[in-house]
Amino acid sequence: MTSEIRRPSGRAADQSRDIRLTRDYTRHAEGSVLVEFGDTKVLCNASVEAGVPRWLRGKKQGWVTAEYGMLPRATHSRSGREATRGKQGGRTLEIQRLIGRSLRAAVNLKKLGEYTITVDCDVIQADGGTRTAAITGGCVALIDAIRYLQREKLIKGDPFHQLVGSISVGLYKGIPVVDLDYPEDSSADTDMNVVMAEGGELIEVQGTAEAGTFSRAELNAMLDLAEKAGAELFAHQREALGIRG
Amino acid sequence: MTSEIRRPSGRAADQSRDIRLTRDYTRHAEGSVLVEFGDTKVLCNASVEAGVPRWLRGKKQGWVTAEYGMLPRATHSRSGREATRGKQGGRTLEIQRLIGRSLRAAVNLKKLGEYTITVDCDVIQADGGTRTAAITGGCVALIDAIRYLQREKLIKGDPFHQLVGSISVGLYKGIPVVDLDYPEDSSADTDMNVVMAEGGELIEVQGTAEAGTFSRAELNAMLDLAEKAGAELFAHQREALGIRG
Amino acid sequence: MTSEIRRPSGRAADQSRDIRLTRDYTRHAEGSVLVEFGDTKVLCNASVEAGVPRWLRGKKQGWVTAEYGMLPRATHSRSGREATRGKQGGRTLEIQRLIGRSLRAAVNLKKLGEYTITVDCDVIQADGGTRTAAITGGCVALIDAIRYLQREKLIKGDPFHQLVGSISVGLYKGIPVVDLDYPEDSSADTDMNVVMAEGGELIEVQGTAEAGTFSRAELNAMLDLAEKAGAELFAHQREALGIRG
Amino acid sequence: MTSEIRRPSGRAADQSRDIRLTRDYTRHAEGSVLVEFGDTKVLCNASVEAGVPRWLRGKKQGWVTAEYGMLPRATHSRSGREATRGKQGGRTLEIQRLIGRSLRAAVNLKKLGEYTITVDCDVIQADGGTRTAAITGGCVALIDAIRYLQREKLIKGDPFHQLVGSISVGLYKGIPVVDLDYPEDSSADTDMNVVMAEGGELIEVQGTAEAGTFSRAELNAMLDLAEKAGAELFAHQREALGIRG
Amino acid sequence: MTSEIRRPSGRAADQSRDIRLTRDYTRHAEGSVLVEFGDTKVLCNASVEAGVPRWLRGKKQGWVTAEYGMLPRATHSRSGREATRGKQGGRTLEIQRLIGRSLRAAVNLKKLGEYTITVDCDVIQADGGTRTAAITGGCVALIDAIRYLQREKLIKGDPFHQLVGSISVGLYKGIPVVDLDYPEDSSADTDMNVVMAEGGELIEVQGTAEAGTFSRAELNAMLDLAEKAGAELFAHQREALGIRG
Amino acid sequence: MTSEIRRPSGRAADQSRDIRLTRDYTRHAEGSVLVEFGDTKVLCNASVEAGVPRWLRGKKQGWVTAEYGMLPRATHSRSGREATRGKQGGRTLEIQRLIGRSLRAAVNLKKLGEYTITVDCDVIQADGGTRTAAITGGCVALIDAIRYLQREKLIKGDPFHQLVGSISVGLYKGIPVVDLDYPEDSSADTDMNVVMAEGGELIEVQGTAEAGTFSRAELNAMLDLAEKAGAELFAHQREALGIRG
Repeated sequence: MTSEIRRPSGRAADQSRDIRLTRDYTRHAEGSVLVEFGDTKVLCNASVEAGVPRWLRGKKQGWVTAEYGMLPRATHSRSGREATRGKQGGRTLEIQRLIGRSLRAAVNLKKLGEYTITVDCDVIQADGGTRTAAITGGCVALIDAIRYLQREKLIKGDPFHQLVGSISVGLYKGIPVVDLDYPEDSSADTDMNVVMAEGGELIEVQGTAEAGTFSRAELNAMLDLAEKAGAELFAHQREALGIRG
Repeated sequence: MTSEIRRPSGRAADQSRDIRLTRDYTRHAEGSVLVEFGDTKVLCNASVEAGVPRWLRGKKQGWVTAEYGMLPRATHSRSGREATRGKQGGRTLEIQRLIGRSLRAAVNLKKLGEYTITVDCDVIQADGGTRTAAITGGCVALIDAIRYLQREKLIKGDPFHQLVGSISVGLYKGIPVVDLDYPEDSSADTDMNVVMAEGGELIEVQGTAEAGTFSRAELNAMLDLAEKAGAELFAHQREALGIRG
Repeated sequence: MTSEIRRPSGRAADQSRDIRLTRDYTRHAEGSVLVEFGDTKVLCNASVEAGVPRWLRGKKQGWVTAEYGMLPRATHSRSGREATRGKQGGRTLEIQRLIGRSLRAAVNLKKLGEYTITVDCDVIQADGGTRTAAITGGCVALIDAIRYLQREKLIKGDPFHQLVGSISVGLYKGIPVVDLDYPEDSSADTDMNVVMAEGGELIEVQGTAEAGTFSRAELNAMLDLAEKAGAELFAHQREALGIRG
Repeated sequence: MTSEIRRPSGRAADQSRDIRLTRDYTRHAEGSVLVEFGDTKVLCNASVEAGVPRWLRGKKQGWVTAEYGMLPRATHSRSGREATRGKQGGRTLEIQRLIGRSLRAAVNLKKLGEYTITVDCDVIQADGGTRTAAITGGCVALIDAIRYLQREKLIKGDPFHQLVGSISVGLYKGIPVVDLDYPEDSSADTDMNVVMAEGGELIEVQGTAEAGTFSRAELNAMLDLAEKAGAELFAHQREALGIRG
Repeated sequence: MTSEIRRPSGRAADQSRDIRLTRDYTRHAEGSVLVEFGDTKVLCNASVEAGVPRWLRGKKQGWVTAEYGMLPRATHSRSGREATRGKQGGRTLEIQRLIGRSLRAAVNLKKLGEYTITVDCDVIQADGGTRTAAITGGCVALIDAIRYLQREKLIKGDPFHQLVGSISVGLYKGIPVVDLDYPEDSSADTDMNVVMAEGGELIEVQGTAEAGTFSRAELNAMLDLAEKAGAELFAHQREALGIRG
Repeated sequence: MTSEIRRPSGRAADQSRDIRLTRDYTRHAEGSVLVEFGDTKVLCNASVEAGVPRWLRGKKQGWVTAEYGMLPRATHSRSGREATRGKQGGRTLEIQRLIGRSLRAAVNLKKLGEYTITVDCDVIQADGGTRTAAITGGCVALIDAIRYLQREKLIKGDPFHQLVGSISVGLYKGIPVVDLDYPEDSSADTDMNVVMAEGGELIEVQGTAEAGTFSRAELNAMLDLAEKAGAELFAHQREALGIRG
């Protein structure tokens, strides 16, 4: 990757921010992880509840879902509280649907039994990449919740299927870069969120040209960056969880 | 592309459904297009209104936005009316945000003047691919609305920038196929919506593994199919609009 | 009826617009009728669902209800989408209650079994008289849904009771006229919607003086017009359904 | 009118309930009337506010509107509070639209100046006919609010145009009767609300066959009853207001 | 208590307004009381319904809850109808939670059986102290609803536990006063609502410094006033209910 | 204070939990404080915005308001997200109104200029006493926001008026205790929240008997405990802010 551009943070084009995963961040949730991608901080709490949504009853499987929220002053200027406005905005719904889909790829729902795990991802501080941080940290919280179910002998098998992580890539001043922070994100030409499974295979790719278009070659350059960053994400997750790679 | 699988419709893997674009479908809208991708029928009405949203006032530019809805019985079984339930669902919001972003890529907002064009995409009958049909038909309705502004001498320059079209691709029984209909869509392993500009460049790529994962090679095979189908889409749009290629 | 006034459309005072009833307009609904009263076009989809509302359970009868909506650009200027505003307006609720009551008069609910038929009336294009068109077309869609229940042997008897049709009448520049289009409707002194059964008997009469008042004599002159137009409505319905008069 | 049937109340077919209009029922409103039609009690408060709705600004006229509500236990069994459910139901919206239209017929809006008069009609106790009582009592409250504007010299001319009153009629066991109470209303074949101006001319007619149909002859018999009852209504209004007939 | 200040009403500092409790004010409710504290008038209707909220099912106890509303023109200037705005405001929710808690102190829920009593407190006219009037009158309506349950032999024991009454006290121009009316309430330095049981013991104390602070000594002086007024409240309740003290 | 009871935490009756105030907890807010009362953790972010609510415009003063929220899994079992349910519950509204009123007592609004400071109090982890922690921490965040306005020379004078802190007291197994944690709070007979100014004067007192009643003597014993704890609160605030006592 070229080193000609200067990223606002001084990072190299293929350099992610410092990633930290702090388990047991709060006391009550069955899985509670504070994930930090640099200054982006998201609290991911996984809650276990007996039962499944109505449309899954009797199908002998569990369910994993996610909700996403942002504290009003997680951002540069205060944004109205969604509870006050009376509904979740389109951006919020879109993000929590993405997180939910992504985390379900980490789990074998048939082995989960009739339990629902809800992963609440609440942004404490935002600096770009909140959804990718939420997926990456949410996966660890989800696994802790699964371990709780096993430890309490509420389920027999192991529903954990594979680690799932996510990173953003984009074209900043025409150059592919990884893990965009807010200053980059707000002026990038193209912005892409990539969700990957442990082996590098793809789970979700969402790329958007904010201005102009992007070519197949640029798409491939961005995916190369994501693939490389993915390996780091999974190493962080394994380390946090105490799993050997 | 292999011809080994049998698609439920009997189509070849790289064969789109019949695409029809009927302009002036209703009387009142400045642009009104019925778009059909086989049995999927979406009415795209583009409405011109003077003024722009509050956050754009004084910035000497226009705005293009979209709304999406589905008639309650556009689908196999009746789904509740969103107006009755009191809010638009997450899927609806996600789709209309995608349509709006995509259509803005067709326009030079600076040249639009302080006008807002709202493209309402209402699904009359659904058989898979409603969002890709909506983008493809909505682009034609949008251009008709721009032509209205020019004809009425409400603006001087030409804000039309480029044709924008969209098609779905996916992995059906492991094989890349284009323009999935409902039977394919509901059992596909991976589903991807691709929004392209006239020259084949990419505007948006949204690929989701519904089950399992997909590889970089599969992603590329799907994008090849989308690129090929894109050429047809733009030919249909040009023909409908009476533009030479 | 006098021919002294000139109606904007050039029609005689007792002349309805061209009425068209197109069955099987969409694929999925058990009954699907596009009804046109001139430029007013309403899609009426009747959906069959097993079960009845909670308050009817165990009463060994069925239920017929209606919902009404207008596409945002069915009208001269765009009106906000009710799903976006978060609720149905008073006019919408009033109209769908009228349609529901009227269509229940077409059916013997005791013979319907524990099925609910919901008739969605969505206005594709509006030019006055959308509620009367919806009732007239909705009745045909409802009968097709009943025929479906019989054909599928889901019910034994025939719940169809009588044809129901509706037409508007009004005082336009002081003269009674039938089937007002938008230009007449928006400047009429009095506007009345009449719902009739096949034999000419009345099901609902809603007359409103928009300006001033109306006399008993004027009421009777308007009802005479409605009665005459009713005969045509029922002929159209019978023809569409292939029923002998 | 035949006297063969026994009305549950023992009233003659053409006999209204006792009607009482109590002015100045509460202290704060510019017009405050408790209207009683037998056991139906509705508090009608007319409030004067400077200014008109946005769509009337600059048109040099005033506005009259109405809102309708029912205390949760105004009825035999408690019905949920609309403020708790988060919206006004269709019946409420339909009734308040009717009251508003009817009361506007009492006023010359051009002479009202840029004032809005809102007439709140809240049902304290319900026994059938709440909407007709609300119109009849609301008209008196409205006139008191107009007199306030004149007394305070906020307007110059007299916007009062004509008295407006309303009564229900119906077919009860096949016989036309006037001013239905709840036991009659809930089992009537046909139910009609008639809004009249002082001279007997019609402002609104809303007749609904709850079961079966009704004939032109029955419609006329019901309107005869309404006309006769109307004369009494206007006498009550004049007496309450101290106006000579 | 000092008599140096002049209260706007001319009352002595320790003098409550005239209190009136009118039972059987409306016909349908099992308990219906109009309570008047001077010009403040609140209609308290207690409704009995079989069953308890979901979270109490199977716990062999009943439930008492309250709802509070204000007619739009109960106040000096019209306030918007909460049903129209689509939600109850924070003040309303806070007050109805207080009323519900207070009234539950009057009842032995275990002896109530699986019945819910809902006490609707609707303010007909407001002049300060609506919540204290609502608790005082609501208690009487509640007891009438309990007596109904006993009279109808729907329950065996007597769930009535103790009378509950409420009065406001405050610091007006620095002097402790009891039962503030609107002119006092709107300019008081401190405002306190006290809910008491028959013996003078406290159920709820809510004191707020609207400007500045208040001392422990002032708190005690206010509570002395409340205690004295409480004795009168309970006398009024006993008299209305025909209970010997 | 007696030491006979054993509090679940082993604390003495007059012993508060460890209190920690961490300033600058997040980056973006003008004031950002994490307040901990033992295991109760609340993030208080104070945001400065130019302008005041509509009803204060032109009155040459500022405004201070608060919003309160709880992360879904701050508690033992997950509670639904208010943004998803579409409204803030009564408890939330009641608490945020209390916080807002309390914090306004810390400020001279006339000296604040036409600025609004919104203090968002979001509960990260709950173990009883979230509202008292929010007031105590929110006051520090508010002062930091005021200091920001002064530092940026946006205002001239000093709107800071006095420190405001809050603590809960209650009757646990009949004994007055201070700063109840969740196990105590959920089984206390009486629960009281006290808001105090720096000198010990009272700003708000809200005491509720959850079961039975409480006497004047018990009220006074609880207030004694609150007064003593208040002195500690203000010491913590001064230390955090670097103010000498």
